[in-house]
Amino acid sequence: MTRTAAVLIIGNEILTGKIQDQNLGYLAAELFQLGVRLRRAVVCADEIETIVSELNALRVAHDVVFTSGGVGPTHDDLTLRCTEAHLRMADVPEGARLLNNAEVPWPTVVVENVYVFPGVPEIFRMKFPVVREHLRGNVRFHSRAVYTHCEEGEVAALLSRLAEAHPEVSIGSYPRFRDPDHRLKVTFDGVDEGAIARALEAFVQALPAEVVVRVE
Amino acid sequence: MTRTAAVLIIGNEILTGKIQDQNLGYLAAELFQLGVRLRRAVVCADEIETIVSELNALRVAHDVVFTSGGVGPTHDDLTLRCTEAHLRMADVPEGARLLNNAEVPWPTVVVENVYVFPGVPEIFRMKFPVVREHLRGNVRFHSRAVYTHCEEGEVAALLSRLAEAHPEVSIGSYPRFRDPDHRLKVTFDGVDEGAIARALEAFVQALPAEVVVRVE
Repeated sequence: MTRTAAVLIIGNEILTGKIQDQNLGYLAAELFQLGVRLRRAVVCADEIETIVSELNALRVAHDVVFTSGGVGPTHDDLTLRCTEAHLRMADVPEGARLLNNAEVPWPTVVVENVYVFPGVPEIFRMKFPVVREHLRGNVRFHSRAVYTHCEEGEVAALLSRLAEAHPEVSIGSYPRFRDPDHRLKVTFDGVDEGAIARALEAFVQALPAEVVVRVE
Repeated sequence: MTRTAAVLIIGNEILTGKIQDQNLGYLAAELFQLGVRLRRAVVCADEIETIVSELNALRVAHDVVFTSGGVGPTHDDLTLRCTEAHLRMADVPEGARLLNNAEVPWPTVVVENVYVFPGVPEIFRMKFPVVREHLRGNVRFHSRAVYTHCEEGEVAALLSRLAEAHPEVSIGSYPRFRDPDHRLKVTFDGVDEGAIARALEAFVQALPAEVVVRVE
């Protein structure tokens, strides 16, 4: 079975647009590399009841859950549910494990299947490698792409047929506007490299050669 | 009562890290400007059962809900729940309203309190102004900020006291790493400009003058 994951991003600053989240995209790409399927992301406010209810819903429904934010020393940092300034960053919930490595000065707190990360993107990225070995899934995801000059509507029926003929391949199509390089990127993802290659090949064969920009 | 909002971002490409979401930050900032409180954002996969259950949960709990993604012509565009390629973009759910304006070639589909937007950031931004007048809240949010050279832990106790003394003001603190301009930005948000000014003033007064970079 593919291991599943969810992420809870905590912070009023994200919901008011003051700060743009930069952790979801990083985490999503890392988990894809690790063969862990990120199923759901939720962004919620700095409110203890909200965090508790969101986190409880996520942790029972996924193999691993990440939280981002709410672990600093100030009043709006509520995720770890501790109460004294500064020193409270050394307080962790009962039963928590601490993951360390030599390069990062702060341990990562893990409570059951919940990995607690800070919202600050630089620290999130510093800490993530520490837990990478704990997370590696039992499958590997592969992704290939065809860049084309097609308009999305022109290949919609073709992609529908391919999606039906190759159910083990996840096919995505992403139009670009005002990009001189290509108009449509079509991606083929999954765990079966052979099936991905067959679906991709069938797509390329069905297109006039002149609309194919490149295959990756 | 402040009007509440939620957003459902639909797309495997976001959860696999292939494409970085650019709509949440834009929408969050726009809603803040409009006096609408964004309470929750959810990112989910391109699966019809998942979209339906996420959307149903969001639309009963918030005054307005936005969806981003899943409305193009291909097989992975499921949000509008229609089934024919290309032409199906002209199919809309029964009871839907269409909002138009002169500058945008495509109408925005609105079903009850759900505003349906495409995931492509350029089109999301082109379409959003059309619905702005429908959304304006009955309050205005204000936000001010103090940029300082403080370390977050040094002002944590002070911020806790201020948060308690000014419960109508939402106080946020955002540390920066390796930014020569400032180490900590402290924000004061709310609907009561006078209360915001008082909380901000109390914060600035409590700091040594030399650590205050600027007040906005």
